[in-house]
Amino acid sequence: MRDPGFEAAVGAAMEGGREGGVPIGAALVRGGEVIGVGHNERVQAGDPTAHGEISALRDAGRQRTYRDTVLYTTLAPCAMCAGTVIQFKIPKVVVGEDRTFPGELDLLRSRGVEVVVLDDERCIGAMADFQRAHPDLWAEDIAQD
Amino acid sequence: MRDPGFEAAVGAAMEGGREGGVPIGAALVRGGEVIGVGHNERVQAGDPTAHGEISALRDAGRQRTYRDTVLYTTLAPCAMCAGTVIQFKIPKVVVGEDRTFPGELDLLRSRGVEVVVLDDERCIGAMADFQRAHPDLWAEDIAQD
Repeated sequence: MRDPGFEAAVGAAMEGGREGGVPIGAALVRGGEVIGVGHNERVQAGDPTAHGEISALRDAGRQRTYRDTVLYTTLAPCAMCAGTVIQFKIPKVVVGEDRTFPGELDLLRSRGVEVVVLDDERCIGAMADFQRAHPDLWAEDIAQD
Repeated sequence: MRDPGFEAAVGAAMEGGREGGVPIGAALVRGGEVIGVGHNERVQAGDPTAHGEISALRDAGRQRTYRDTVLYTTLAPCAMCAGTVIQFKIPKVVVGEDRTFPGELDLLRSRGVEVVVLDDERCIGAMADFQRAHPDLWAEDIAQD
């Protein structure tokens, strides 16, 4: 059976790609229920801070605690998003893949966050296609120069 | 002479406080010019990711590089905002104060970011007053439970 949180993240990533944006999505889950979902909005909203994880947390709105939540994301979180997980004390992150971008998984683990990497073929394929088709946009999104 | 970047950050913090929000502000500066300014919007926009630094970067919009910028903030950056500085490769952060919240200055320094702490009395006073008046809101903003 597919995990609803991960499927929500993948669905958001694909939607972002269809919109012409960076195809990375995320979902915040509490007790099996998706309470926030979002995708990268750099292109769509002109917002460089709107990575998938940030968009999902924004969508969830104010929370008293995140200790009972899991964050699903299609791609290994960058330093901004890893720092956000640490700051919000989200105990577990499920990552679609870390092959097309290594992210900051070691930083997460060093702060006690449980990290699960799924090595999902849909996520790898979508990101590899995107990076080939839009190298400049991808470089901008990860501030690579 | 007062630094225009820092004064923009302080002005944004005070504006956020007058609006009933968390009084923390930030400004992104390039070549002496403020290109983005913002304050914490947890209360005003119901957005837990809208710390001052994130709001300032959002205000600046998409940038090809941040290597020629300085980020000013009235309070020591949390893990989210420190991670953002690292991810965006902002080389220097000027911090109003780190007395009312220690932030992640060591994480910034460990990644090669230059950190300047001003120990500004206006910033210390505004945060100390806010933390006394709104302990629950402050605890929520830093995910303290």
